[in-house]
Amino acid sequence: MKIQKQLSQSGFKSGSGFISDYQRLIKDVVLPYQYSVLNDEADGAEKSHVVANFKNAAKALKGEDTGDGFYGMVFQDSDAAKWLEAAAYSLVLFPDEDLEKRADELIEIIADAQDDDGYLDTYFTIKDREKRWKNLMEGHELYCSGHMIEAACAYYEATGKSRLLDVMTKNVEHIYRRFVTDKNEGCPGHPEIELALMKMYRLTGNEHCLELCERFINERGVNPHFYEEEAAKRDWTVWGNNPSDYDYLQGAKPVREQTDATGHAVRAVYLYTAMADLASQTSDEGLLKACRTLWESITKKRMYITGGIGSTVIGEAFSVDYDLPNDTAYAETCAAIGLMFFASRMLETDVDREYSDVLERAFYNGVLSGMQLDGKRFFYVNPLEAVPGISGASPTHRHDLPVRPKWYACACCPPNVARLITSFGKYAYGENENTVFCHLFADGEVKFENGMKLICQTKYPYSFEINYKVLNADGKAAIRVPSWSEKNYLFKKNGVVIYPLLKKGYAYIDVKDGDELMLDLDDTPYRVYASSKVPRLTGSAAICRGPLVYCFEGVDNDGDVLSISLKRSGAISLRQISDERLGYTEKLLVEGVRRERSDALYSTQPPKEAPYTAQAVPYYMWGNRGENQMRVWMNEAAEN
Amino acid sequence: MKIQKQLSQSGFKSGSGFISDYQRLIKDVVLPYQYSVLNDEADGAEKSHVVANFKNAAKALKGEDTGDGFYGMVFQDSDAAKWLEAAAYSLVLFPDEDLEKRADELIEIIADAQDDDGYLDTYFTIKDREKRWKNLMEGHELYCSGHMIEAACAYYEATGKSRLLDVMTKNVEHIYRRFVTDKNEGCPGHPEIELALMKMYRLTGNEHCLELCERFINERGVNPHFYEEEAAKRDWTVWGNNPSDYDYLQGAKPVREQTDATGHAVRAVYLYTAMADLASQTSDEGLLKACRTLWESITKKRMYITGGIGSTVIGEAFSVDYDLPNDTAYAETCAAIGLMFFASRMLETDVDREYSDVLERAFYNGVLSGMQLDGKRFFYVNPLEAVPGISGASPTHRHDLPVRPKWYACACCPPNVARLITSFGKYAYGENENTVFCHLFADGEVKFENGMKLICQTKYPYSFEINYKVLNADGKAAIRVPSWSEKNYLFKKNGVVIYPLLKKGYAYIDVKDGDELMLDLDDTPYRVYASSKVPRLTGSAAICRGPLVYCFEGVDNDGDVLSISLKRSGAISLRQISDERLGYTEKLLVEGVRRERSDALYSTQPPKEAPYTAQAVPYYMWGNRGENQMRVWMNEAAEN
Repeated sequence: MKIQKQLSQSGFKSGSGFISDYQRLIKDVVLPYQYSVLNDEADGAEKSHVVANFKNAAKALKGEDTGDGFYGMVFQDSDAAKWLEAAAYSLVLFPDEDLEKRADELIEIIADAQDDDGYLDTYFTIKDREKRWKNLMEGHELYCSGHMIEAACAYYEATGKSRLLDVMTKNVEHIYRRFVTDKNEGCPGHPEIELALMKMYRLTGNEHCLELCERFINERGVNPHFYEEEAAKRDWTVWGNNPSDYDYLQGAKPVREQTDATGHAVRAVYLYTAMADLASQTSDEGLLKACRTLWESITKKRMYITGGIGSTVIGEAFSVDYDLPNDTAYAETCAAIGLMFFASRMLETDVDREYSDVLERAFYNGVLSGMQLDGKRFFYVNPLEAVPGISGASPTHRHDLPVRPKWYACACCPPNVARLITSFGKYAYGENENTVFCHLFADGEVKFENGMKLICQTKYPYSFEINYKVLNADGKAAIRVPSWSEKNYLFKKNGVVIYPLLKKGYAYIDVKDGDELMLDLDDTPYRVYASSKVPRLTGSAAICRGPLVYCFEGVDNDGDVLSISLKRSGAISLRQISDERLGYTEKLLVEGVRRERSDALYSTQPPKEAPYTAQAVPYYMWGNRGENQMRVWMNEAAEN
Repeated sequence: MKIQKQLSQSGFKSGSGFISDYQRLIKDVVLPYQYSVLNDEADGAEKSHVVANFKNAAKALKGEDTGDGFYGMVFQDSDAAKWLEAAAYSLVLFPDEDLEKRADELIEIIADAQDDDGYLDTYFTIKDREKRWKNLMEGHELYCSGHMIEAACAYYEATGKSRLLDVMTKNVEHIYRRFVTDKNEGCPGHPEIELALMKMYRLTGNEHCLELCERFINERGVNPHFYEEEAAKRDWTVWGNNPSDYDYLQGAKPVREQTDATGHAVRAVYLYTAMADLASQTSDEGLLKACRTLWESITKKRMYITGGIGSTVIGEAFSVDYDLPNDTAYAETCAAIGLMFFASRMLETDVDREYSDVLERAFYNGVLSGMQLDGKRFFYVNPLEAVPGISGASPTHRHDLPVRPKWYACACCPPNVARLITSFGKYAYGENENTVFCHLFADGEVKFENGMKLICQTKYPYSFEINYKVLNADGKAAIRVPSWSEKNYLFKKNGVVIYPLLKKGYAYIDVKDGDELMLDLDDTPYRVYASSKVPRLTGSAAICRGPLVYCFEGVDNDGDVLSISLKRSGAISLRQISDERLGYTEKLLVEGVRRERSDALYSTQPPKEAPYTAQAVPYYMWGNRGENQMRVWMNEAAEN
């Protein structure tokens, strides 16, 4: 059932394009910065205390005084795990002794915090060992284990060092005993370990991983009242979550019966990712069918144009169909990342650009927007409209900040961006026995396990020409033609135009050693219209070019974008710029009108309008030039 | 400083127009219905228990078993007070022995619940007398007293019976002793008693009322930490309000220093009403200046086109400037009523249609929308857009119901509408020594204290001709020309066209006994545009006619209004209809286009549009024909 699989972690080497630049930024800036945060050495950032928590947990295990004890979220450990995972990916791209040394040290600190029985979680180890496993809903022990398992796998693959993998194998056995051998009920309140167990299973062949993953997925929602029953047995909570909110916890029904993407968006897509992975691994058609239904629920009814998902701050969750507010959006960075995970696993079951288009949409918009261009500040929440004075200020917009903060008390997103970018190759490329798959376009060298190699050269998404040199090949290259380019693209093979048929949006081209392929995609900016079922998007259009959604910021538009409307048939032109704060980018200039500003709240006077050329920048760049207005969906100019 | 004053309660007698029809509905349907609710005899409505609470409180005072004790909100008593007040007004309009008998009985029940020292509040009397006056923030004892004072004054004026007035005079003396004589600190968490004390002062001349009102207004916000200090002294709360939320409680600053309308919207406008009343009574220019600033804050930056205020559900409160969402609006019915109170008091200080235009806007739209046309169901929240599937369903739209419920656990709005409509004459007309003022247009007979009389005949707002017969006059009639009619209106005096100059929107016309005046206002439908500072309203227009804001409902528009845009220069025509469910009304037919429905969430295809004539009904009528889409602000059709 698995038609192709993600590229192996070591398969991609950065080149010199857009993705490589981002990967270098992670290595040079983000990883060192986040390391300093984890060690509470970053100026002006929220306190993290992650490393200190592990050290204090080790003391607790020895019965020593735990000093300043535990600090942070119940899942604080996972920040270290995600950093380690990102560091592992970075080491593949850019070998770095110093970074590896720091990672090794951190792994020792983590290993010291593991209990004799394999248990590993600083919150409960420091605070109260008696409370272990008594609050699956909020305790996040399985979530933290999941992230540490991912880190362990990545670090082993990157370095060959098994120290953390051994720790986590012991941890998995502890969890296996509890949930399989001893038949304790319950599933993780925050899914994550499921997808991690699948990774570990593939890496190690340990059947307990697969069995445990199946156990967590198959039992989810079978007893919707589990969390209530669990809560009734204890007299404490972590943060007072409601155990009866079945949807929030993706536990209202067995997973195979779930049809709408509901609840906490990150939890949801992490779960669906594992479901898709397990389904393809075990050829479970019923489970895969549920994944397809949930995929449709998200992408056809509950997803922003940016690939952002989870539109409401209430529960950081999916709302109902077509409820996609721009200004009060939640659209957590981690949720867009999770959607990429889900898309990538679905793509393994069916090479259809339906999945890879979303993979790309989420990455270039909803994920990249989560990080400031210099790698030093982060958005947790990614609105599609910001208006200083309202955004971050109105009671309903408190979460929608107009500029990125340095760090968060709940710091899930920053290290998640780091690990995603450094592992971009896994999502961009795939393979099976005799075919290599190019889902996304990323400059660099690609080495497949089937023996084939690709060298990709491109400045995408700021150039629409992608060149491949195929090496060591005797098979096919399947290259995605994005849906936005389906009417206008060109393939060349060894300099000769070819016309490969597309199958589900992919061109399958026979390749031999030394072949050169070129794909030229449509670079014409285009408008996007939303279904009129989305109340907030009626009467407006968004401007895109290639995979990039554009937005209009005040700084480019005389300080005010709210009074601008775009002409439906107006010309769109391109301006290349190299800006001190944005670096290189390509602005779009769009014909429109500007309404004369009026101080009257309501007026019976028809608005006076004058022609205006509005300027747009890629959405992922917004908020890099100070606090100002930003809008993705622009009103269309009215017929007079 | 008081230039004119509200018409006395007994000054207006219903005629046979729009207002009179509504007043008759209150008498025939609403008052009996609400009486049955208060007595827990209404089928399918939320339990009220109001009358039972008073009876049980009387038992508590005698040390008897209180049976089923207290039930409901801490301010449940006020529902009885508002009903009594409405009944009093109704008795002036439509003498009714049965109603008066029921009111007298209720008053005896209330009187029995008063403590020997004058204290009157069933919640604390039943639950715990030791907690009296220990929680001004949440306890609502002063709020309930305020409403009962208003009822007592109204009932005395209507019937000459002083039973309730005596009870409340004793209650006021109790409060006076506590806050003036004994110098206890603190102000009501929910302002209301202040405006009631001003009414009682004018009715009775009791200086303690004035003094107490001044005490509550002048001390408000002087110690912003009062509620925190108060909370620190007790170990209980009513509903866990945050004593540090100074803005919510209008207590961040002394009232004369407040510049932005903040916090719980009903509390805010009740306070401002009393401030304006006190300022004009005592010629306090500083206080009046604060009122003007707060008025501007509301009406120029924080008010819906419907006169709805308090745009956010969070705290039922004012948000920041220009944050006026249509779909997640709160716009509580009571807040629009409170805005009318405030407008009416401001109008006493300055006869400027700036105030009376808002008075009218709020009444015909934000207030009337609060009640189903048959008087049997009520909206607490009045959104400007409803989309079944999202409204009432999305986590951020739970409060925005698409159809009116029968009653509410928190039932402040229904009886508030009843008392407002039955006292409409007070807001419509005013007077001073030699002038009568016509602020609003209401068919009926008006008798002024200055001796003059008016007989007004009109079908307004479904006719734009208003005829006055002036009797017993030797002075002036000041008649408002609404701002929407300023470019097109006509006055006749005794059949001859006259051209009176307008002063702040009012025509001052010399009148003698027997004069006949006619005013013909502009009946042309018109478009309203919002300032582009309001993010949610860019690119759209609202359709109005006279004082009525119109809306588009699915039932009139093939089930879908979201896909309709209106042509900016499109014709608007009128259709008179008499509908089984709407009764008589005048629909507006507006030229527009309808977008072809698309199931694709996002599409690069330009939308296909076809001409469509959209139908609108007055906003106050929405939601009377089942659950369907509704929109006030419509997109304007794009230039192709």
